[in-house]
Amino acid sequence: MNDLSSPVFRKPPAEALLQARYRESVPAPAIWNETLDLLLSHRSIRAYLPDALPDGTLEALVAAAQSAASSSNLQAWSVIAVQDSARKARLAALAGNQKHIQEAPLLLVWLVDINRLGKIAEAQGQPAGALEYFDSFLLGAVDAALAAQNAMVALESLGLGGVYIGALRNKPLDVAAELGLPPYVFALFGLVVGHPDPARLADVKPRLPQRAVLFREQYGFGEAGLLDVETYNQRFRAFQREQGLPEQDWSTQASNRVRDVNSLNGRHVLRDALHSLGFGLK
Amino acid sequence: MNDLSSPVFRKPPAEALLQARYRESVPAPAIWNETLDLLLSHRSIRAYLPDALPDGTLEALVAAAQSAASSSNLQAWSVIAVQDSARKARLAALAGNQKHIQEAPLLLVWLVDINRLGKIAEAQGQPAGALEYFDSFLLGAVDAALAAQNAMVALESLGLGGVYIGALRNKPLDVAAELGLPPYVFALFGLVVGHPDPARLADVKPRLPQRAVLFREQYGFGEAGLLDVETYNQRFRAFQREQGLPEQDWSTQASNRVRDVNSLNGRHVLRDALHSLGFGLK
Repeated sequence: MNDLSSPVFRKPPAEALLQARYRESVPAPAIWNETLDLLLSHRSIRAYLPDALPDGTLEALVAAAQSAASSSNLQAWSVIAVQDSARKARLAALAGNQKHIQEAPLLLVWLVDINRLGKIAEAQGQPAGALEYFDSFLLGAVDAALAAQNAMVALESLGLGGVYIGALRNKPLDVAAELGLPPYVFALFGLVVGHPDPARLADVKPRLPQRAVLFREQYGFGEAGLLDVETYNQRFRAFQREQGLPEQDWSTQASNRVRDVNSLNGRHVLRDALHSLGFGLK
Repeated sequence: MNDLSSPVFRKPPAEALLQARYRESVPAPAIWNETLDLLLSHRSIRAYLPDALPDGTLEALVAAAQSAASSSNLQAWSVIAVQDSARKARLAALAGNQKHIQEAPLLLVWLVDINRLGKIAEAQGQPAGALEYFDSFLLGAVDAALAAQNAMVALESLGLGGVYIGALRNKPLDVAAELGLPPYVFALFGLVVGHPDPARLADVKPRLPQRAVLFREQYGFGEAGLLDVETYNQRFRAFQREQGLPEQDWSTQASNRVRDVNSLNGRHVLRDALHSLGFGLK
């Protein structure tokens, strides 16, 4: 539940943050610190004030992003900062009409970018055959996600809010055309950045119990895990009630989301789209 | 260059951190804070002390990881904590004999996990046809990377060090067998966690100039970008000199890394391996 008078990112004690995230009593480790406070306080922001970002925000976020690890230091990602209102509106329409894309001052589009590596090889008169393989795409996707998450942490540390827009993958070719992407570049997801509207702030979303996702030595999700999911369903319903959302088991939501080709909102053609965008995916 | 008497994660002024990251003079934005200090200070740690981790570290890192955003809240990832010395040794051997995997007390293996969603649907008597599509794999990979990066930020905030191990993808089937992975689960990368050895600490690695990766409104890497790469080559050579590494242009390293199928260290069979691991990738 939100206290409207509180700052956007409150710093309650570790136990309260763990309680909010898991909806169970979890003893806080002795090693807790303010960075953990920040990370545990994450919530996706879907309601923004129209205020502009402070000067230098974009550059600080990208410096944070570039400071994330990169596989073999290939830096196989790029980012496009979209601030033009008409372009944001067109991208919002392509991403299932998510109005917060237009509401917030900035949309960062995170790109798998192996074009740059190809151009560098070309300038040296070298072949770049490895780029045609699946791992080169995947490496770029991981690089882009690590970078973007650093930007998310950075923006939240500045009192700003963000939300990822996976729905940019619903219409990958249209998005590529809108952003002028050359071959070997793919818009993996967006990240909306702005000032959260404190009057429309969602609470921290509870997650699965740790034991359902963290295993020791070998994989371990089984029958006991399914019982943990039942427990989580109850906690998720409590969250929904508090937020004034319709109540539905998480497991039902999740099953519906993976049910069949119609659950994919257009993404069933993604592999073909990637081929069209130049990726070999061999 | 490292000051051995300094704490592992020093907090120099923002300008110094930007200088270290870009090797050019970048004015620090007025909005700088300690979280940006932490993020900008990242360096991958490949030399560890044998010391055990403080109690509760693993649980804190996973709580941070679970606090990262998850696409449609599907939580399509899991993590395996490997601490057994013999298993770490076997995984190190599979990942190109990276000795820091065995040296450090903990290896986290981050999994694309859509098995859990399949089991949940099955328990409800529902089909889960969407899991056969490419986007379901990609969604899990992005979820896993966002989660892992939160763990990386968390561990660095605690004065620990980490390094990602993408080379776990060199032998995906052997890694899956070692970790007992069921179908629809894939070891995306590892993350070594431990106490950095202050006597063997690498410096912050410089990255491409911002203008080579950050574009406004539309994609923009072109001829000017190639000139930025030349500038970066010089800065990268200065870093190599200071670290006592052989000097080589970054663009040469990068071209060699993407040259042909032999550059992939076994990953040229990754798509087939994913099919063997149950992923449809349709």
